[in-house]
Amino acid sequence: MGITFYDIIEYIGTFAFAISGIKAASIKRFDWFGAYVVGLVTAIGGGTLRDLLLGIEPFWMSNVSYLICTAVALLVVVVFGKDIFRYKYTFFAFDTVGLALFVVVGFEKSIMNDYPYWVAIIMGTLTGAAGGVFRDVLTNDVPLIFQKEIYAIACIIGGVIYMCCHLLSVDTLLCQILSFSSVILTRILAVKYDICLPVLKEPNDDSQLKLF
Amino acid sequence: MGITFYDIIEYIGTFAFAISGIKAASIKRFDWFGAYVVGLVTAIGGGTLRDLLLGIEPFWMSNVSYLICTAVALLVVVVFGKDIFRYKYTFFAFDTVGLALFVVVGFEKSIMNDYPYWVAIIMGTLTGAAGGVFRDVLTNDVPLIFQKEIYAIACIIGGVIYMCCHLLSVDTLLCQILSFSSVILTRILAVKYDICLPVLKEPNDDSQLKLF
Amino acid sequence: MGITFYDIIEYIGTFAFAISGIKAASIKRFDWFGAYVVGLVTAIGGGTLRDLLLGIEPFWMSNVSYLICTAVALLVVVVFGKDIFRYKYTFFAFDTVGLALFVVVGFEKSIMNDYPYWVAIIMGTLTGAAGGVFRDVLTNDVPLIFQKEIYAIACIIGGVIYMCCHLLSVDTLLCQILSFSSVILTRILAVKYDICLPVLKEPNDDSQLKLF
Repeated sequence: MGITFYDIIEYIGTFAFAISGIKAASIKRFDWFGAYVVGLVTAIGGGTLRDLLLGIEPFWMSNVSYLICTAVALLVVVVFGKDIFRYKYTFFAFDTVGLALFVVVGFEKSIMNDYPYWVAIIMGTLTGAAGGVFRDVLTNDVPLIFQKEIYAIACIIGGVIYMCCHLLSVDTLLCQILSFSSVILTRILAVKYDICLPVLKEPNDDSQLKLF
Repeated sequence: MGITFYDIIEYIGTFAFAISGIKAASIKRFDWFGAYVVGLVTAIGGGTLRDLLLGIEPFWMSNVSYLICTAVALLVVVVFGKDIFRYKYTFFAFDTVGLALFVVVGFEKSIMNDYPYWVAIIMGTLTGAAGGVFRDVLTNDVPLIFQKEIYAIACIIGGVIYMCCHLLSVDTLLCQILSFSSVILTRILAVKYDICLPVLKEPNDDSQLKLF
Repeated sequence: MGITFYDIIEYIGTFAFAISGIKAASIKRFDWFGAYVVGLVTAIGGGTLRDLLLGIEPFWMSNVSYLICTAVALLVVVVFGKDIFRYKYTFFAFDTVGLALFVVVGFEKSIMNDYPYWVAIIMGTLTGAAGGVFRDVLTNDVPLIFQKEIYAIACIIGGVIYMCCHLLSVDTLLCQILSFSSVILTRILAVKYDICLPVLKEPNDDSQLKLF
């Protein structure tokens, strides 16, 4: 089989997600194995949760390249050391491109399995964003996407754009391109202009519940 | 379709579970999106785990009302602010009614899928109590139900009562009412009389393992 | 049905895994219910994740003995108190024997379901090691296997040995024995000679990402 443009984006995204997991693992001083697992879970966790919910075989179980991609990411970090994490613009670009692709893939898998649009939007968002939540749970951090950055919102917007295009019977390739671009655009704008969602105020009431 | 009494209790329970997730999220200063996700996971997480284990489609994927219920809960918290959390008797009532329903639903789904009673009791308990565990994992807290409150035990008692009624060939509606009531009663009694399970003592031995 | 040698090892392993979960729960001062759940999740969590990924019914749902084994483990801890944790050589032996069996079972279940070898190696490792990760997540600790001890690596080696034997058309029983022994041997050697994997250095760069 030949490697398509699609494959290349997918490998780039997997690599970027794995790097983000390995970075989080290295902050917690995990060993190589731990770093590999966290990198892998970050990269494939979202899609795995999606496939379990959709009742289909997890995508990575029929294609070893995701494991190899993660191994390459670990190798790069081991060889180049922490210097590698300085290329944050590069990783941001990789990560964003990967995120956008994962959203499109997650959305399409859901509508191909005859789920309604709102399920597809959720699945697109899970594919893109759930891996990072698993990463933060495994490294015992509070999940980043719940506190900072317009990350999941970009996924939701990408899903909504796909839905609108699909409803308007836009050609599939154009649906993909528009959805893909909207994720990237949202993410870049959010980081550039420091756009955040409002934070909920802490309730100052934690007295014990007593009945009667 | 008309809205049944059953639906109303289910919405109340979903709302109460979502509120508990949103409250936990606000303590950690999550943004609106984070609060929504934690609220949603608290509300539907237990039933989702149950459905994955039973090998059936997660219940919320064919009915958008759980997502809407959670959105309403978030809206209420955003509009009324932390004052809302003061109505703890109300939330306790909602939460307990929801818990009782979730136990009955989880139990019934399992026996309808031909699982033995002990699996049904576990599934009833998971439906009621696992969402709260996910909530605590996502907000990086030690799960509350492992340390305090007779919460899961109320679920187990509800399941055992249903099993006994079912074994005695009691009419289904009566099975439901008795199981439902037993969960509520256990929970109220436990809170009123501050009943707790004993705590395990900490082992004071953490020296390194050395062989030979 | 008679109890086979295989069953006995499986019960020993389940017991040892449950004890490790109950110990972790007691350190966090969980109540009996919490200790039971953490013990159970430690014992059956890895196999449950494996079965969900393979798309088959979780193994414990057709056999109540895993729940009973965990109950016995809790009873032993409650009756004998923290003194029980002193027998660490015994628990190490139980845990290692259980680990080795879980790896073999996980590997075989995967190839019986026509998955490739690399999936089987992952599934063997998940069966043996994922329960401990769930334990650490539930008790809000950083997963131990990501930082210390050659634990998961022993699982991987066991899987690789099984694959090699299988490729060489070695008799199934011999495959099992060789794979089983290799896990035990690796684990004993690693603990005896304090073999660890290298740790990733922490990146000293956590400045905010700014585009443009």
